[in-house]
Amino acid sequence: MLLDRLDVPIVLAPLAGGPSTARLAAAVSNAGGLGFLAAGYLSADALREQIANARGMTSAALGVNVFVPGIPAAPGSVDDYASRLTTAASQAGVELGRARFDDDAWDAKLALLIADPLPVISFTFGCPDPSVITAVQGAGSEAWVTVTTPAEARQAAAAGADALVVQGSEAGGHRASFIDDPAADVSGGFGLLPLLQLVSRETRLPMVGAGGIGTGAGVAAVLAAGASAAQLGTAFLRSPEAGTARVHRDALAGPGETAMTRAFTGRLARGIRNQFLDEHSQAAPAAYPEVHFLTAPVRAAARSAGNPDLVNLWAGQTHELTSELPAGELVAQLAREARNAVAAAAGRLAPRA
Amino acid sequence: MLLDRLDVPIVLAPLAGGPSTARLAAAVSNAGGLGFLAAGYLSADALREQIANARGMTSAALGVNVFVPGIPAAPGSVDDYASRLTTAASQAGVELGRARFDDDAWDAKLALLIADPLPVISFTFGCPDPSVITAVQGAGSEAWVTVTTPAEARQAAAAGADALVVQGSEAGGHRASFIDDPAADVSGGFGLLPLLQLVSRETRLPMVGAGGIGTGAGVAAVLAAGASAAQLGTAFLRSPEAGTARVHRDALAGPGETAMTRAFTGRLARGIRNQFLDEHSQAAPAAYPEVHFLTAPVRAAARSAGNPDLVNLWAGQTHELTSELPAGELVAQLAREARNAVAAAAGRLAPRA
Repeated sequence: MLLDRLDVPIVLAPLAGGPSTARLAAAVSNAGGLGFLAAGYLSADALREQIANARGMTSAALGVNVFVPGIPAAPGSVDDYASRLTTAASQAGVELGRARFDDDAWDAKLALLIADPLPVISFTFGCPDPSVITAVQGAGSEAWVTVTTPAEARQAAAAGADALVVQGSEAGGHRASFIDDPAADVSGGFGLLPLLQLVSRETRLPMVGAGGIGTGAGVAAVLAAGASAAQLGTAFLRSPEAGTARVHRDALAGPGETAMTRAFTGRLARGIRNQFLDEHSQAAPAAYPEVHFLTAPVRAAARSAGNPDLVNLWAGQTHELTSELPAGELVAQLAREARNAVAAAAGRLAPRA
Repeated sequence: MLLDRLDVPIVLAPLAGGPSTARLAAAVSNAGGLGFLAAGYLSADALREQIANARGMTSAALGVNVFVPGIPAAPGSVDDYASRLTTAASQAGVELGRARFDDDAWDAKLALLIADPLPVISFTFGCPDPSVITAVQGAGSEAWVTVTTPAEARQAAAAGADALVVQGSEAGGHRASFIDDPAADVSGGFGLLPLLQLVSRETRLPMVGAGGIGTGAGVAAVLAAGASAAQLGTAFLRSPEAGTARVHRDALAGPGETAMTRAFTGRLARGIRNQFLDEHSQAAPAAYPEVHFLTAPVRAAARSAGNPDLVNLWAGQTHELTSELPAGELVAQLAREARNAVAAAAGRLAPRA
């Protein structure tokens, strides 16, 4: 397993939708961690170019994350929601986008990644069919599946996954749930520490812990809870190598409270509370990627205009702890802090004299 | 600090409302951890008796947890909720209780604990006035305050607390929030791992991490995240020394999903989903302890009858991992597992050959 060979047990979260760059992924891998590229929202051609760029900047291992397609929303299920967004669209000075389904070029991306494999392919938003996992493994890649519950961990293990990315409810951006079911919202989702403990009982597959990790102490905690590595996304969003928009960087540095919402994309995701999130979360349907396409022009315009009220400010619960360090320096700092944190924990557990 | 002298960095959560017993607290302290008694819902006389009983069973340190009183709900604010509970009351074969305010004998309990002090007094549901903290400290006790946000941590530190019990949203039973504000529900609350990292930046006070800890790996994770000890409640609910009702024990052993609710007591708390929780959570007002007294006869009758549909089945997110081990054996097992977990984490962080 690649996880047993990393110099530093730190994995970059994929960060689809802007922040992901080849430079960022290469910087994390060059620092001894594992950099990830995000296939989400890219064409297969753009993904091919990203991979080539990253390979040009590192000889170390890289991963690519792919969105597993869902099913189209029922016809008309987004109409009411679109009506209530007309004010936001005028505020941004644009028309709403067309709410359409899309499989994010699943077949083309898989074909690319099997023809020209990378060390790790991770999956989000579903458990791929066992035949897909076998094909990825046959090409020489490890197949990782992102899970948010013990039941999803069982399913991924049964499908043949090599490792699990275990995502707690603290995480910024989209929840990786196989099915985004509003009926499950009442539970609030498993926190990362409980989830790692519960998944450990379901399977002996290696785990990568994700969600709310902003310090070396957080990295150490996830390892102590049984993970082979920690995955951090928000922590890297303000790095100079990230493609994060200015308005998003500024919000991350402040003290804003986060919440889960379907308002921006039709899939549950955690972001910093703002006007759009607070006004529309209650009404937003589970309809991904239809709502993503519906709101895309509003978000793009607000992002360009530097208006934080209408942008999806994805952020995990420790976003206030982010820094502007270059990604490689951040990896090194987190590793140092993590070693100190583990030593302190060992001291607490040592038999008293 | 007592936390630096414990043989095992494990603290028993107070477990007010039935599960707390002198035997359980003494067993945890005798095993090298720190046992806690719950003053909540007891008269001052009953608390005095519990303390005497526990002292008769251990010469080690003990703590007592006290509820900080809130303010009465607005007149009539529980009437609508009471109306919708009449069906549940008939189902249980009882009348609803009278929805009344109560300060849980705050003055009498404080007087008792200052006249005859224990090593630690912890507070829940609010930050005591600095004069109370000074009085407790003057009597020779450490004053710990339970917090759920970085802002509460700042407030407790400013009030003079000796240590913070840092409670994540994964925890079973009542949230310790200073103010139970429904407007804050949208955030879902901080997970324990993010909260420990954020509170570490606010204050250098020692932290006790609480919420969703069900294994030694969980204990180790909390220590690695910077806590001086881990506080476990749900993990001890099925111990033979606990006063947990049969119907509650049976539910804990199963796979039931948990959720936050005000349905049972008028204060946000996490329990296993059942009929009462699912039917009434949306409608339940923030009115504690008024709703507690309103539903008490229903819950008591259902508990006696072994009917899980109408009982508050408080549980943290790792309740499925609970065992029936005697409390002292559980403390020893958790400590062993935690040492192994920290050693494994250290291995992951060691420089590669």
